[in-house]
Amino acid sequence: VFGHSVVGDNLERIVRTLRAAARRADVVVVTGGLGPTPDDLTREAIAAFLGRPLRRDAELEQRVKAVFERLGRPMPAANLRQADLPKGATAIPPVGTAPGFYVHSDSALLVALPGVPWEMEAMLSGTVVPLLRGAAGAGAIVSREILVVGLGESATHEIISDLVERQGNPTLAYLAGGGRVRVRVTAKAVSADAARALVDPVVREVRARLGDAAVPGEGTLAQILGRLLVARGATVGVAESLTGGLIGAELSAEPGSSRFFSGSLVCYSTSAKSEVAGVDPGVLERAGAVSEQAARALAEGAAKAFGADVGLSATGVAGPGEHEGKPAGTIFAAATLDGRTVAQAIRGYGDRSNVRAMAVTTALDLGRRILDGR
Amino acid sequence: VFGHSVVGDNLERIVRTLRAAARRADVVVVTGGLGPTPDDLTREAIAAFLGRPLRRDAELEQRVKAVFERLGRPMPAANLRQADLPKGATAIPPVGTAPGFYVHSDSALLVALPGVPWEMEAMLSGTVVPLLRGAAGAGAIVSREILVVGLGESATHEIISDLVERQGNPTLAYLAGGGRVRVRVTAKAVSADAARALVDPVVREVRARLGDAAVPGEGTLAQILGRLLVARGATVGVAESLTGGLIGAELSAEPGSSRFFSGSLVCYSTSAKSEVAGVDPGVLERAGAVSEQAARALAEGAAKAFGADVGLSATGVAGPGEHEGKPAGTIFAAATLDGRTVAQAIRGYGDRSNVRAMAVTTALDLGRRILDGR
Repeated sequence: VFGHSVVGDNLERIVRTLRAAARRADVVVVTGGLGPTPDDLTREAIAAFLGRPLRRDAELEQRVKAVFERLGRPMPAANLRQADLPKGATAIPPVGTAPGFYVHSDSALLVALPGVPWEMEAMLSGTVVPLLRGAAGAGAIVSREILVVGLGESATHEIISDLVERQGNPTLAYLAGGGRVRVRVTAKAVSADAARALVDPVVREVRARLGDAAVPGEGTLAQILGRLLVARGATVGVAESLTGGLIGAELSAEPGSSRFFSGSLVCYSTSAKSEVAGVDPGVLERAGAVSEQAARALAEGAAKAFGADVGLSATGVAGPGEHEGKPAGTIFAAATLDGRTVAQAIRGYGDRSNVRAMAVTTALDLGRRILDGR
Repeated sequence: VFGHSVVGDNLERIVRTLRAAARRADVVVVTGGLGPTPDDLTREAIAAFLGRPLRRDAELEQRVKAVFERLGRPMPAANLRQADLPKGATAIPPVGTAPGFYVHSDSALLVALPGVPWEMEAMLSGTVVPLLRGAAGAGAIVSREILVVGLGESATHEIISDLVERQGNPTLAYLAGGGRVRVRVTAKAVSADAARALVDPVVREVRARLGDAAVPGEGTLAQILGRLLVARGATVGVAESLTGGLIGAELSAEPGSSRFFSGSLVCYSTSAKSEVAGVDPGVLERAGAVSEQAARALAEGAAKAFGADVGLSATGVAGPGEHEGKPAGTIFAAATLDGRTVAQAIRGYGDRSNVRAMAVTTALDLGRRILDGR
């Protein structure tokens, strides 16, 4: 991806953006603006850019009408605009209600996809990627990511800066946020196998240097933890405070998570920590709800409440204000398995949303570590 | 905002993007690329665009050094690059570790901000907005949003299409997703009061036409529900299944949510619904975990478990596969208050993430309605 532009619903500005994009790239992918309302201008803009008329496609017209028949609703006349295509364009059948299309200009291939994420994604993988593979001919790009927890972007860079600085093919890039850094290693070669042969030794070198901070496996932290749980037929229960449900939401983001995720006790109030998660009120009184002791008791209470093999927890101060005299960013997480409980304190930073994301990361990573026997 | 471009860490491409942006706009705001690593090229790119050298700023140098002294860590020499500014630029003091700056070219004002969201936001509101207000002189833009639940974007448009089509000042725009549509009404005028006088009658007209689907109040659904709860000194407890914790996460997203949010029982497994949320196992057996009866029992169980005034729940099938013979997108939500329980079934669509977001919307909206006495 060489460039990415966002432009408002204005015909002249969209045409100008298309012109600039077609000058610098061989393929221009446009998303959005294919709906039936008057601010949906992508069809008109691409036709104007090409200097060609719009024509109503008979087959698309039938498809648009069929969607409304299926819903048992009258079709507003404006919806027939969705069957219009610039002359010479090939339709991509609708996944929801909006069809996409692609068309060649003198200099570039233009692809128009709906803005609704899942409609765009289905057309991208079903039609656009094969089309691009065909157009690109031989050659492949392969990327692998290494997930880093417990080291910031600067600290990660200090350890592998020479690899980054001497980079050519493969290249290395950082993507950081929420207490995680992803190091992406990308190579181009004549084939996917050849690209992998360039990527793999660099991935091994980065993993060796980062040691314990590099999470083994690929995917998100929740996916990695989920695979470890499924592999040993184990389940996880959570008790969370400052994260408000985000640990549970992340563990259940992927289909099939019911194989390992039992549930989460979101104990936002202090009384819920004792009454719902069974934390000894004495612990809450002596050490406070934001304490290592509370985190340990929450993890143990979660495992017990759900009858789960692994218990995870996070408690802390999301901010911006302090709580119980503890500053924003204070985070305690814990994990328990087979009667052994481990805990970790970290100092989160950034805004409320980043502090909560860092707490999620710390709890999931502790779960991964305790299953790895660390 | 007239245009928005994303460009990789490549000096030549960044300079080309700056040139195009400065041609079409009076102010160009750049985010990211101000860190200490070699892929941070914004300083060099703006200097190259201006045809001016970079100079090390003595005061910034002291500030960068002070950050590391405070952390008690040695400063890598590369970090001093963060004190370099194009000749003629004015520094914006760092919020985290990266300073920002602004500088005038012949044709435009260029502003460079760090990419870390909260650092960017602090500089934007603290320095950039006042700077732009000063440059813009008289005149104001005012926007208001109307939150719509229970009607899709097309259905909303059918009701107010004539207002959208005759638009000039104010303009109307739709932002849709996760079962919510926001209708944004924006006017420009010589003063904020004059702009508000243009916006307000249109907002009233849109609300009148949309009736019950337009949520009274401003802000997110969680903020609106939170204000209703705080106003009557009430609290809310949640029991959620397919949403995995997202209802709790949304209710606790804003600071101060502990005034009204007690917690959430995320009962992902069927056994957790009875053992943790106290749903009668007979209900789960007869009607299933994905049923209106289960949703009602979950809401009531949540209110009881947390000792909360209001109980909310959502159960359903996030997909992509079916569950208990019910198709992906099946959603039941319920709300309970003072011994009265209401429930709603909706058919979610789109991918797993959108179905979950629609379930969150339905549950929060039911909570809002039951507090409104509906």
